[in-house]
Amino acid sequence: MSKKNSLGIVETRYCTFSKSPDELEMDSGRKLGPIQVAYETYGQLNQDKSNAALIVHAFSGDAHAAGLDNQGSKPGWWDNMIGPGKAFDTDKYFVICSNVIGGCMGSTGPSSPNPKTGKPYGLEFPLITIADMVRVQKKLVESLGIKKLLSVCGGSMGGMQVLQWVASYPQMIASVIPIATALKHSPQQIAFNEVGRQAVMADPDWRHGDYYEHGQPEQGLAVARMIGHITYMSDDSMEKKFSRRLKQDNGYSFSFKSDFEVEGYLRYRGDSFVKRFDANSYLYITKAMDYFDLSRGKLIPHKKKIDTKFLIIAFKSDWLYPAYQSKDIVRALKLNDVEVTYCEIESTAGHDAFLLEVDEQTHLIKHFLNSISNGK
Amino acid sequence: MSKKNSLGIVETRYCTFSKSPDELEMDSGRKLGPIQVAYETYGQLNQDKSNAALIVHAFSGDAHAAGLDNQGSKPGWWDNMIGPGKAFDTDKYFVICSNVIGGCMGSTGPSSPNPKTGKPYGLEFPLITIADMVRVQKKLVESLGIKKLLSVCGGSMGGMQVLQWVASYPQMIASVIPIATALKHSPQQIAFNEVGRQAVMADPDWRHGDYYEHGQPEQGLAVARMIGHITYMSDDSMEKKFSRRLKQDNGYSFSFKSDFEVEGYLRYRGDSFVKRFDANSYLYITKAMDYFDLSRGKLIPHKKKIDTKFLIIAFKSDWLYPAYQSKDIVRALKLNDVEVTYCEIESTAGHDAFLLEVDEQTHLIKHFLNSISNGK
Repeated sequence: MSKKNSLGIVETRYCTFSKSPDELEMDSGRKLGPIQVAYETYGQLNQDKSNAALIVHAFSGDAHAAGLDNQGSKPGWWDNMIGPGKAFDTDKYFVICSNVIGGCMGSTGPSSPNPKTGKPYGLEFPLITIADMVRVQKKLVESLGIKKLLSVCGGSMGGMQVLQWVASYPQMIASVIPIATALKHSPQQIAFNEVGRQAVMADPDWRHGDYYEHGQPEQGLAVARMIGHITYMSDDSMEKKFSRRLKQDNGYSFSFKSDFEVEGYLRYRGDSFVKRFDANSYLYITKAMDYFDLSRGKLIPHKKKIDTKFLIIAFKSDWLYPAYQSKDIVRALKLNDVEVTYCEIESTAGHDAFLLEVDEQTHLIKHFLNSISNGK
Repeated sequence: MSKKNSLGIVETRYCTFSKSPDELEMDSGRKLGPIQVAYETYGQLNQDKSNAALIVHAFSGDAHAAGLDNQGSKPGWWDNMIGPGKAFDTDKYFVICSNVIGGCMGSTGPSSPNPKTGKPYGLEFPLITIADMVRVQKKLVESLGIKKLLSVCGGSMGGMQVLQWVASYPQMIASVIPIATALKHSPQQIAFNEVGRQAVMADPDWRHGDYYEHGQPEQGLAVARMIGHITYMSDDSMEKKFSRRLKQDNGYSFSFKSDFEVEGYLRYRGDSFVKRFDANSYLYITKAMDYFDLSRGKLIPHKKKIDTKFLIIAFKSDWLYPAYQSKDIVRALKLNDVEVTYCEIESTAGHDAFLLEVDEQTHLIKHFLNSISNGK
């Protein structure tokens, strides 16, 4: 990475809202507070505060989208898309990445201390929705003095937050870029999430969510993550990456050890996930995704006129969030005379494509943001 | 069901081979015995024993393919395909359905008593392959006095056994009908099986396979089965069956109970599976599927001339065993100048289609068997 292209080390910052536990009401009717949000920013906010873009992350993501972490080692999860000269050009735009509530990456979630007990919430944490996540993001954006965002962009669950911004605060956003996402989860998507939740809850170490003194349900959570990883790739990309290659040259083990490279990979991904992600957050966030539903007129309620511009991106081999779901968003917008550009990118990478297909996405997003910031 | 179409009650029968524990060598190099096989037969074997068709089952199937079980209540898993006037017309053909070894439906498997200890084998049971299953089926067929089968037919893992018959005993089969199957598992198919195995083995009740005195690892096995069920259906068929319908009319529960019908269905299928299927058999049989590989010239070794006729059936919406895998079988056969009819049936039922698409399969199979038995 050349110096010119690097953002260098970026500190994650924290902001706290609703200091009273009874201040902010969630969709469930329950109240939550205090609420801490982890976020990072890249580039400079301009004088009239009109160059801000909000990046929202997928299921297990965090606020560290670009630059290097404070150890100077780990690049952000979308570092190839955010920085000087990149899709989100930090020479021109002020880019914010906000972590979601319900998670475990610095924002308030089920592993945070419950102010009423001093102990981690566990299942005392209220179930949250995508709209609750976005409600808190709006507070963060306002706290930075920004009245209108140039754009809100995110893939997968990030795309759901993007769509929720449209439904909740259309007056605050000039444009949005929902990537590889859906207006609602299909029963198949709910089913994959539910099996993951069942795997976590079947692990006796889960202890009904009250495991923080004992260590988390690692085996169940690893199984859940393995299922996830299969759905993030495509049949084709797995064939390219692993085929039927064996871990050992001397053939089948005739045991239940992992024989195939793909098995070793899944076990590795499962094991590394449990080191960084909280099992209860897995439950809360997957449930928020399953509850999300902006179909049937809920994306733009009451045929309200909105002037938010849309760039919608889907990927050919993504079978977890298939392109037809992005086309459903296009259809909902067209019924409301909203301007929308839709692009289905050729890719064999499956759902992971939104993290991997940098060139095409850069091309599309750069031009789209240019047209927005030039007021076209 | 009219009396004319019904086979009535059919008794499952049992046959024992290799009475000495050291008689029959498996692919792993280990020996197994005695070996019991559960099977059923329908129709009458003709004088010259030329009208026998062997049906082989999928992963969790059993010998009870047609008619009613001995309680007179449960029809066989392919009852709509086997009987008087049906695809496998028992007025014309003698139909055998053989259970696989490694399972838990009456044939020898990990839950059977180990003759060396008197206790269930558990993980002392040797890992078996699809070829081992077929080796035992051949003994069963021979024990019935049959030298050549008119046909061998099966879907999914049944299709693998069919292909293994071709590779192992081509001289014994006039025709074969592999349905919704593959020459080898792709890494995606291995991955789904491996996650299921991990779910079973992560359950502390699994006790390294030595659970028979305590009860089996129900929760892990249920999770494994839930994953399976998602892969057996299609995105489309799940949408038709469940959409996003809730179990309760009063909206989201804002809890981790099952909110959606699809969640309730999966939990139900998981729970009923653990009542009828052995967790170790789950491990052994999925591993046998993953080990199966007749690609790269192994289906018809050394360009041997074979006169077995092929009818290969795949289904449009089957994403677990996609049609391209059936086309790979066609290609392997064509390279060896083998006669093959290939049909891709329009269906939205996913992999389950081989159990559900009765009309089209009946039409195809009836005519195919006619042409074979007429020696065309």
